[in-house]
Amino acid sequence: MKLDERLAQDSQLVAKLPLCQLRLMNDARFPWLLLIPRREGASEIFDLNEVDQQRLWHEASVVGQMLKTLTQADKINVASLGNVVAQLHVHVVARRHDDAAWPGPVWGHGEGQPYAPDRLEDMRHSLLVELEKLQPLL
Amino acid sequence: MKLDERLAQDSQLVAKLPLCQLRLMNDARFPWLLLIPRREGASEIFDLNEVDQQRLWHEASVVGQMLKTLTQADKINVASLGNVVAQLHVHVVARRHDDAAWPGPVWGHGEGQPYAPDRLEDMRHSLLVELEKLQPLL
Repeated sequence: MKLDERLAQDSQLVAKLPLCQLRLMNDARFPWLLLIPRREGASEIFDLNEVDQQRLWHEASVVGQMLKTLTQADKINVASLGNVVAQLHVHVVARRHDDAAWPGPVWGHGEGQPYAPDRLEDMRHSLLVELEKLQPLL
Repeated sequence: MKLDERLAQDSQLVAKLPLCQLRLMNDARFPWLLLIPRREGASEIFDLNEVDQQRLWHEASVVGQMLKTLTQADKINVASLGNVVAQLHVHVVARRHDDAAWPGPVWGHGEGQPYAPDRLEDMRHSLLVELEKLQPLL
């Protein structure tokens, strides 16, 4: 799968799940993951076949639950928008009542704040440790 | 299922799908549907069991595809946010390159513009006609 340049620039690879590439958005304001199905030419959810759609949402559900526990978030936001980047991608964002955009959406809210390099690596590592435990579910 | 008061106030019932209540947001700026699973106490997607999750996303997919065709939209936005209303609900929004919020998200964008009563009824009717055709898929 060819990854959109904007997605590649704004996020870091965490892991390859059965269907999706899991990436971490480089924005320290919100724990923010992307799931990008490894399928060419998909833009809408319904561009995927039914089996892939079910797999996508299953992966989003497992990842969302993991992220909520890991970050002790108040709410998980899950969204497929694609108004700017056409390549199909699903956002899984951990929200807190005191985060920078609450209760509004994170998309288009102010400027992203890149992680310090070691904090980005810490976050990727924590995600990988949690994912390892969830391997049987994926 | 007890419907959240805010959801009840902001939207009109269109149809009962196998899992969800399908509602039309009373905001003429965007063709905007809500899917609300008829399950008590769910707030996150992963509060539903796996079967209900798959059914929810299946209904969202069928409804999204129908809405895109009906409104000749450029993009469908699908999201489960729930930062304001805790009751689990999925937004399915038809977006156009020239709509009021493009390319930003619709949530929190300006003030809603209620439909004229006859336009609201026209929209509900159009949705019901399309849904009728899709009955075998739901």
